Amino acid sequence: MESTLILIQCKDNIGLVTSISHVLSSHNLNIITMREFVDELSSLFFARIECRGFVQDNQLLAIELKNSLPENAIITINPSKKKKIAILVTKEYHCLGDTLMRHSFNTLGGEIQCVIGNHETLRSITERFSLPFHYISHENKDKKAFENELLAILALYKPDYIILAKFMRILSPNFISNYAGKIINIHHSFLPAFVGANPYQQAFNRGVKIIGATAHFVTSDLDEGPIITQQITHVNHNFNASQMRIAGREVEKAVLSKAIALVLEDRVFITGNKTIVFE
Amino acid sequence: MESTLILIQCKDNIGLVTSISHVLSSHNLNIITMREFVDELSSLFFARIECRGFVQDNQLLAIELKNSLPENAIITINPSKKKKIAILVTKEYHCLGDTLMRHSFNTLGGEIQCVIGNHETLRSITERFSLPFHYISHENKDKKAFENELLAILALYKPDYIILAKFMRILSPNFISNYAGKIINIHHSFLPAFVGANPYQQAFNRGVKIIGATAHFVTSDLDEGPIITQQITHVNHNFNASQMRIAGREVEKAVLSKAIALVLEDRVFITGNKTIVFE
Amino acid sequence: MESTLILIQCKDNIGLVTSISHVLSSHNLNIITMREFVDELSSLFFARIECRGFVQDNQLLAIELKNSLPENAIITINPSKKKKIAILVTKEYHCLGDTLMRHSFNTLGGEIQCVIGNHETLRSITERFSLPFHYISHENKDKKAFENELLAILALYKPDYIILAKFMRILSPNFISNYAGKIINIHHSFLPAFVGANPYQQAFNRGVKIIGATAHFVTSDLDEGPIITQQITHVNHNFNASQMRIAGREVEKAVLSKAIALVLEDRVFITGNKTIVFE
Amino acid sequence: MESTLILIQCKDNIGLVTSISHVLSSHNLNIITMREFVDELSSLFFARIECRGFVQDNQLLAIELKNSLPENAIITINPSKKKKIAILVTKEYHCLGDTLMRHSFNTLGGEIQCVIGNHETLRSITERFSLPFHYISHENKDKKAFENELLAILALYKPDYIILAKFMRILSPNFISNYAGKIINIHHSFLPAFVGANPYQQAFNRGVKIIGATAHFVTSDLDEGPIITQQITHVNHNFNASQMRIAGREVEKAVLSKAIALVLEDRVFITGNKTIVFE
Repeated sequence: MESTLILIQCKDNIGLVTSISHVLSSHNLNIITMREFVDELSSLFFARIECRGFVQDNQLLAIELKNSLPENAIITINPSKKKKIAILVTKEYHCLGDTLMRHSFNTLGGEIQCVIGNHETLRSITERFSLPFHYISHENKDKKAFENELLAILALYKPDYIILAKFMRILSPNFISNYAGKIINIHHSFLPAFVGANPYQQAFNRGVKIIGATAHFVTSDLDEGPIITQQITHVNHNFNASQMRIAGREVEKAVLSKAIALVLEDRVFITGNKTIVFE
Repeated sequence: MESTLILIQCKDNIGLVTSISHVLSSHNLNIITMREFVDELSSLFFARIECRGFVQDNQLLAIELKNSLPENAIITINPSKKKKIAILVTKEYHCLGDTLMRHSFNTLGGEIQCVIGNHETLRSITERFSLPFHYISHENKDKKAFENELLAILALYKPDYIILAKFMRILSPNFISNYAGKIINIHHSFLPAFVGANPYQQAFNRGVKIIGATAHFVTSDLDEGPIITQQITHVNHNFNASQMRIAGREVEKAVLSKAIALVLEDRVFITGNKTIVFE
Repeated sequence: MESTLILIQCKDNIGLVTSISHVLSSHNLNIITMREFVDELSSLFFARIECRGFVQDNQLLAIELKNSLPENAIITINPSKKKKIAILVTKEYHCLGDTLMRHSFNTLGGEIQCVIGNHETLRSITERFSLPFHYISHENKDKKAFENELLAILALYKPDYIILAKFMRILSPNFISNYAGKIINIHHSFLPAFVGANPYQQAFNRGVKIIGATAHFVTSDLDEGPIITQQITHVNHNFNASQMRIAGREVEKAVLSKAIALVLEDRVFITGNKTIVFE
Repeated sequence: MESTLILIQCKDNIGLVTSISHVLSSHNLNIITMREFVDELSSLFFARIECRGFVQDNQLLAIELKNSLPENAIITINPSKKKKIAILVTKEYHCLGDTLMRHSFNTLGGEIQCVIGNHETLRSITERFSLPFHYISHENKDKKAFENELLAILALYKPDYIILAKFMRILSPNFISNYAGKIINIHHSFLPAFVGANPYQQAFNRGVKIIGATAHFVTSDLDEGPIITQQITHVNHNFNASQMRIAGREVEKAVLSKAIALVLEDRVFITGNKTIVFE
């Protein structure tokens, strides 16, 4: 039987669930799973509703929901199941490789349009999967020029999401503002984290017994965007910095793949500098 | 501000959420969090609803909800926050000790009425916490006689839940039927599990790399009741059977304590031989 | 500086470490890490010794070690760092894909020689990585004929290890005896486990809250060979059998990849029906 | 049969294992498990050796080992199995309670001598277990005076280890120097961590998906001493700061108890600002 997914984000108010479910009933939509959350700090209401039933007239349903909800409600009915993705990389293969493999077997839940690298290293693996690879060097140009080249390529594809799969350049607030809430990064650490270069060396120096990785949306505040998901792995005194890096890669790969799945299944909402994840 | 907790269990149907939220609105109850689940196998609907607002007339609300729901709906409004608990033990202290300690600092979420042991071993720790300990030996009597003594003591306390905190006697279906869905056991293994005596010795013999524990409701089918929660810990070739047992105790303690918290916060529903846990 | 890896397996005895370290010193080998274990049941001693220093004469060192150890000691000096691997598959891509990707970037720690499938499904992904794929159907022939074809292909490659990467045929004791202690399987469950077909359906039916996977050596006793490593993931009532299968695949992939790494780095010894893993 | 535990810490050198095992053999000690590690940064060698056999003359063995090892080697033969412990607390019960419970059933692996609190809150639970509780307020006196009172009490007991079980005062370098490498703290966070007051509020504000705790030795550099062990638990958007604190307590309790066990079993060595843990 047909199913319908509805996403709602609006100011909190008394009777929201009643209002929403009333409209859905009148369209013969039966709620199977309703996940909702009120962020008390921002007084915002978020809902992800799976219904059984077929929507005859999306626009009419959207208008009726809008009329029954507080002003400026954001309503999405049946978001695309094939979101378009651009991947930015540098040299490390593990996150890209895993994403390409899932894509190749139709288990990624999205459509990779292209891979863009600031090095040529990962052209070969990308092309093995018959996907376009664009090489845009950051060398011999200022950041603005580099980012303009990136933006020009991205403009050709109009991706829904940009995945930074170990892309080792810091993007400017200006770049990010073009894809606000649409850029997903994998950070090689917990947050809070060792600040600055070579976190695995720092983790080694500190003698930690756990290392982790964090997938987050990118905001203008470097590594400070809303966290989507985090994972960890245990290490011990036998690990040198390089072995911590190897162990860390497994976590990075797993956590990015989990974050991509959550986002592409429309399970993640952004509220302020946090996420709501209806897992 | 006052808050109200409502639990509902009924046959699935179109428009249930609308019906429920409509009734709640009319009582000026604003839904803060609604967790619901439809078990497709049994066609049953389960909901746990936290509202902001004060119920003037519990009975009226219950009747109005009942009238708006399918026949035989089970509705609970503001279940007791101080559920009464009896604990059955044998000789091992770790699960009992943790539960007594939490109780002593009012973080258990329930009221321990008594501890019943088929050995005297744990009298001392129980009495240190100023709680009654009843010794009921299983020796020199048949199971029926033993269980009748247990039931007689329990009848004095009328507990909401019975916790088997490493109680090493198998209870008969007859005993269990007196407290259906109200007995929580900790099983020293995953389920499926090594069958029979001394599972840690069996785990050692098999050379497993993970051991675990399972908290579950007790049904007449031994160790086969609805699972509430499970946890694991890693072991390796350095562990002998006795060290596996020690490691296992930590897991048993943690998993039982988690299960008790979930049940006492009314987060667990039973459907057939499974649980729904609104964590 | 040069480093030397030495593996020893022999009957336990007083003074083994003295004897071994004495011989190593006389060859100017400085022990960096020595991991050893005595299996008390079998009275066997196992050691994995990393030394700094270069062995001038492997054969001489081996003889001197042998002379200083109990009869029938098994001594390996600098085992190959490029072990040869054949992979057997059926239709599921996730374990194979991950292994191919690591191999492609030289992080597998071994040399994949070929992939053999009893279906054609995974030919394409194998050939993308420029590796030979052999299709050997099991249809219209008895098991013996099927296995003879497998053995004939394998004989061409003489692999050090055979990886069953979701190979869904049961191998006969006769087949296994050709590669005793050299076949690694990934089992879609803990051990002990739901027995028989469709374990994820069984896990769903049982309402478990944790699912896991086990990498083990294959012996003639199906799914009962020495366990190398196990991992788990948490599930809940929202998972249907199919979603458990998807979650399970991530665990299967991770656990197989971990097992391969451990075996290829010569960290795993087999003793009876168990493993010793010097992680 | 008798077993002997030997701990060694000395400058690294060629032939150390040979030298050590030679001496042990000559005393008819058969090495069962030898764990050793060379910290390449400091060029220090650490070993924990379990032998089967009885030492006739501890002093002679110690002298012979010392003579066969580099200068200034630290050798411990059969360290006490009943180390003396003083516990410092403030108001939170969970870490103290778990430690008292284990002690009460002889599974702590050490001897609690006293509990010292800068509040009276935990006197009652301590005295339930028939242990002395000393109340030393920090109020109306400077830190030096407060610490002098602590030191005076501790001097009566001469503890081998001081456990800070949620002791919420910062100890001065002078105090710490009296018990260098002997004070174990539980830090309510990973390290690196949210700096300053109320880390759970900060974790909530940051929207983290994982919280953790760290047990470490205390050095003069606050929260920067050698890490013994760390653990984590998962949280999500449903957790407010207070629920994160509750979840955090479970981790704090588990991680402190693990650290105490490791230290009391002589499995932990300190090297620089790190630990080596022979688990």
